[in-house]
Amino acid sequence: MESVESKALPHVGKQLKEEVRVFAPATVANVICGYDILGFALDEPGDEVIMRRTKEAGVKIVNIQGDDGRLPWAAEKNTVSASVQNYLELIGRNDIGVEIELFKHMPIGSGLGSSAASTVAGLYAINQLLGQPISQRELLPLAMKGEELACGYPHADNVAPSLLGGFTLVRSYEPLDVIHLPVPANLYCSVIFPHVDVPTRAAREMIRKKVLLKDAVQQWGNIAGLVSGLFMEDYDLISRSMEDVLIEPTRAILIPEFYEMRKIAMSAGALSFGISGSGPSVFSFTTNRELAQEISHKISKHLNAHGIECNTYVSSINSDGPKEI
Amino acid sequence: MESVESKALPHVGKQLKEEVRVFAPATVANVICGYDILGFALDEPGDEVIMRRTKEAGVKIVNIQGDDGRLPWAAEKNTVSASVQNYLELIGRNDIGVEIELFKHMPIGSGLGSSAASTVAGLYAINQLLGQPISQRELLPLAMKGEELACGYPHADNVAPSLLGGFTLVRSYEPLDVIHLPVPANLYCSVIFPHVDVPTRAAREMIRKKVLLKDAVQQWGNIAGLVSGLFMEDYDLISRSMEDVLIEPTRAILIPEFYEMRKIAMSAGALSFGISGSGPSVFSFTTNRELAQEISHKISKHLNAHGIECNTYVSSINSDGPKEI
Repeated sequence: MESVESKALPHVGKQLKEEVRVFAPATVANVICGYDILGFALDEPGDEVIMRRTKEAGVKIVNIQGDDGRLPWAAEKNTVSASVQNYLELIGRNDIGVEIELFKHMPIGSGLGSSAASTVAGLYAINQLLGQPISQRELLPLAMKGEELACGYPHADNVAPSLLGGFTLVRSYEPLDVIHLPVPANLYCSVIFPHVDVPTRAAREMIRKKVLLKDAVQQWGNIAGLVSGLFMEDYDLISRSMEDVLIEPTRAILIPEFYEMRKIAMSAGALSFGISGSGPSVFSFTTNRELAQEISHKISKHLNAHGIECNTYVSSINSDGPKEI
Repeated sequence: MESVESKALPHVGKQLKEEVRVFAPATVANVICGYDILGFALDEPGDEVIMRRTKEAGVKIVNIQGDDGRLPWAAEKNTVSASVQNYLELIGRNDIGVEIELFKHMPIGSGLGSSAASTVAGLYAINQLLGQPISQRELLPLAMKGEELACGYPHADNVAPSLLGGFTLVRSYEPLDVIHLPVPANLYCSVIFPHVDVPTRAAREMIRKKVLLKDAVQQWGNIAGLVSGLFMEDYDLISRSMEDVLIEPTRAILIPEFYEMRKIAMSAGALSFGISGSGPSVFSFTTNRELAQEISHKISKHLNAHGIECNTYVSSINSDGPKEI
């Protein structure tokens, strides 16, 4: 990343806003076969941030809604405020003051990039508020630092798609190299969040450190197939490629009714079914919204019959990332 | 593969040829980061086959040039004739007779898909001779069977690009799923075959059966990057992605001056440098023919100074596969 220290704010001759309201999308990491490298953004759900200039310097959280009291309010502990503090430090403007309201519109610990969406909303908001002194891409390392605070690991597979929209490929971390992949026109997503607890750290620790080369070869054949399918807009190839022989067999154990849910989705005509991030949310791709709705409905009914509550979402792929609302 | 048994030959009303001469291209398997799944075809070198109808049924080898007497002449042992026999069996026409002349224009055991080029030339020749009763794609399983005879393993990473041209992705073997990837317009290749012996089987056996998940993740990030680079015609992304953290460190040991050759190629301005297939040939991508020539020349000079003879080839990417000449 290019150094942007002590950047002058590009507000000469234009009126800066006093307040912005920003939406940032939820995301699905891994995308079944692309463990730790692929992700995409959803049109819904997503988190919202209202950010307001204050006279006093410093970053303050003044309101959090929708978190059931689970998120910290201390500026250096909350990923949104901490990321905004890092941003102000990066651009050399610690003299600026803002207060933040955070509206969580998706559950925490759902595997839908909840912390990433909040962090991206906050970073996009402060950059808008100050007239975009740095580019959207330059926000990425700051968002990754926010993920480190939230999950203990500066991964990019949720913040990259939330910030850039569409499908993103994190080719490399050292140096950071993120590639934007095309979004096929008729891709829809059914997401189900069953109300069971799968902490990201535990799910990550379950994964074996060594894998069979032959399984890795099968996995990278599928990744190459999925990427090709996105470029070629070949839904059948996308469907054939979305298989995970390495991670899913371990993680699926933590998700009740996983294989039954898959059967329901695939026999209804889904292109794919798998875990979103480290779970417990699961998702299906379809080529039309109605089918995604049908799948959400059928799986929800099945889970309820087994005494499991769930949230369901039906969404197109978000191509734009965060936006002012 | 669809069954094509006892297929009637589509020669009604048209004169079938008595003789064809066919060229099939050499190939580079793995393409550095795509172990066992990626390959591409070269415009040169390549093998040639002359095939002639005979009155007597059966397949006969009547001439082999350029193999230093190393290839078998017995019809069931030579991969070309054995593959043609399998072809005739598949289409249910064991009554047909042909004789085959094989002209090897590239060294055996070079890591450039020598057996694959011969097999593909033979299969393409017989299919042309009989008026193409089956499609080029349908020849692929037969060519893979030929590879099994030649190398003990029915791999597709040389026969697929030799038969289909361009870059090919073998996404899966069970079922066989081969995807044609685009060829960037300004891609050139410098190939060097140092005269040292690296048998395919030994090179394959050196590879570890288990790998670190974190290395596998790095590898599939690079594969996804390379595939994206081919679609986007992004030479810089292609270059950044062509790194092999898993296989090359082991195989490079068998190739004298490997790291010196890389230094020469990369400092001359190559996009990439790595092993072709299981070696000992190495190859570089460049964005113009002159640079590929310069690299071939410099590496050849370096090897000669170290007492190592070599063949050099400079080629564009072959987009068409085999052809009648």
